[in-house]
Amino acid sequence: MSRPTAYFKSHFPLFRSLQTRWADNDVYGHMNNVVHYGLFDTAINGWLLEKGLLDFKAGSTIGLVVETGCHYFAEMAFPDRVEAGIGVERIGSSSVTYRIALFRNDETSASAQGRFVHVYVDRQTRRPKPLGSDWRQVLGEAQL
Amino acid sequence: MSRPTAYFKSHFPLFRSLQTRWADNDVYGHMNNVVHYGLFDTAINGWLLEKGLLDFKAGSTIGLVVETGCHYFAEMAFPDRVEAGIGVERIGSSSVTYRIALFRNDETSASAQGRFVHVYVDRQTRRPKPLGSDWRQVLGEAQL
Amino acid sequence: MSRPTAYFKSHFPLFRSLQTRWADNDVYGHMNNVVHYGLFDTAINGWLLEKGLLDFKAGSTIGLVVETGCHYFAEMAFPDRVEAGIGVERIGSSSVTYRIALFRNDETSASAQGRFVHVYVDRQTRRPKPLGSDWRQVLGEAQL
Amino acid sequence: MSRPTAYFKSHFPLFRSLQTRWADNDVYGHMNNVVHYGLFDTAINGWLLEKGLLDFKAGSTIGLVVETGCHYFAEMAFPDRVEAGIGVERIGSSSVTYRIALFRNDETSASAQGRFVHVYVDRQTRRPKPLGSDWRQVLGEAQL
Repeated sequence: MSRPTAYFKSHFPLFRSLQTRWADNDVYGHMNNVVHYGLFDTAINGWLLEKGLLDFKAGSTIGLVVETGCHYFAEMAFPDRVEAGIGVERIGSSSVTYRIALFRNDETSASAQGRFVHVYVDRQTRRPKPLGSDWRQVLGEAQL
Repeated sequence: MSRPTAYFKSHFPLFRSLQTRWADNDVYGHMNNVVHYGLFDTAINGWLLEKGLLDFKAGSTIGLVVETGCHYFAEMAFPDRVEAGIGVERIGSSSVTYRIALFRNDETSASAQGRFVHVYVDRQTRRPKPLGSDWRQVLGEAQL
Repeated sequence: MSRPTAYFKSHFPLFRSLQTRWADNDVYGHMNNVVHYGLFDTAINGWLLEKGLLDFKAGSTIGLVVETGCHYFAEMAFPDRVEAGIGVERIGSSSVTYRIALFRNDETSASAQGRFVHVYVDRQTRRPKPLGSDWRQVLGEAQL
Repeated sequence: MSRPTAYFKSHFPLFRSLQTRWADNDVYGHMNNVVHYGLFDTAINGWLLEKGLLDFKAGSTIGLVVETGCHYFAEMAFPDRVEAGIGVERIGSSSVTYRIALFRNDETSASAQGRFVHVYVDRQTRRPKPLGSDWRQVLGEAQL
């Protein structure tokens, strides 16, 4: 089991500010390990929505998650604020691998970090669709 | 079934700004009815924590929820922002009835509104504890 | 604040067996008040799906929640099992008011109970649709 | 990006039957990728509780999650049932690496599979604690 080193904020080109919620804390008084993935989803899809790439109601292209993973270094807990750092590790024909890290309040070293792989597919057929130039341009802005 | 009228922002003395999350949207593309209660919990406990009244890790007094309810008027959806209006309807010996409403983005009429009743109890015995003067003072600031 | 008496299992014509999950427990070591509503949703929609009334992917009629409420009498916690008792209190033209209670493991007195009001609407227009005879027949089987 | 092959049920020594919930389905009509991790947590901790190893309320040893990951092969959705296959990949001094897979209804090939690494620590100090012989015996029953 190789254990990675925690990223710093300086490793990321893009940030999203996220809130924690009361029920994020589990019986041990800290943010449950599952919540981190909900924040990954929110950070990445929130960015894609804001950029006009994703339209989850009517768009013909949707992102299906094919792989996720997370290493946990330090506890976070409601009511902490979370800064999510996002970077694009790899842009494939129809898939994107994101690197993402969660920073507690004003800390500069990640409390948790992981990967998130989206395959972009046609909403109806669920077959992979090559990423258009609009996607490549926006994703390129956050490329590592 | 009497249906109440939606509150306006002017009906509330106190507001908390909340975020929505990707998974708040259910299969119908809007915020699932359950999420509203998670926002109630977050808004009220977040306020009590900030005021130094609630210490969920070590405090001797904790708030148990004995009643909640919600009327839904209009759909909200991620990535909407939510303003939660909070008011204290009634302060009992050891219980507090909160009125709470959720306003979508900059709207002034509530998308949903409800009630939330906390009984404050001793963490160990779970028996009701009379609210101290510190609690009564802070709660009084948001009394309707 | 009038406080109702807890229902017994004998008050309900229909039951659904539900599981709890690890993250249902909050920082106080019991099922968070929000989870109850997720169980209401699951019990009622699960029943409607099984009866062939609801088709959330392609059906023209969907159920929108316009009111929910819950009184909490006793704590439940993962890994408890939950029996959800369901009864139909009122069938309107296009709305249904359900009474629902959650029973912990083999207990016969409810740990929590509430109401859940669905308005059935056209998926596209989101306008109320009169309930057809197929709906009325099935709902009638659980009428109180 | 190497993509693993889906496991079969025959790869696992131990199974837990889990339910899905209404809100597990996201806007795309399938179980959101985050829910899988909630099922991992529930399956593993449920097993440890049943075996008398974990006592999350009063026990001196608690399990902290230090790494999780999941590959997604096929969609699942409420109201599917899920069979969670669990196997112990590695028992360290104070850590355990679990392999876990989720099987939809009666399918024999995994819809998703992942890893889940617990470090067992003292509740108060949060320092790693060597696993006792009771833990090693039970974990050994599910060793791969």
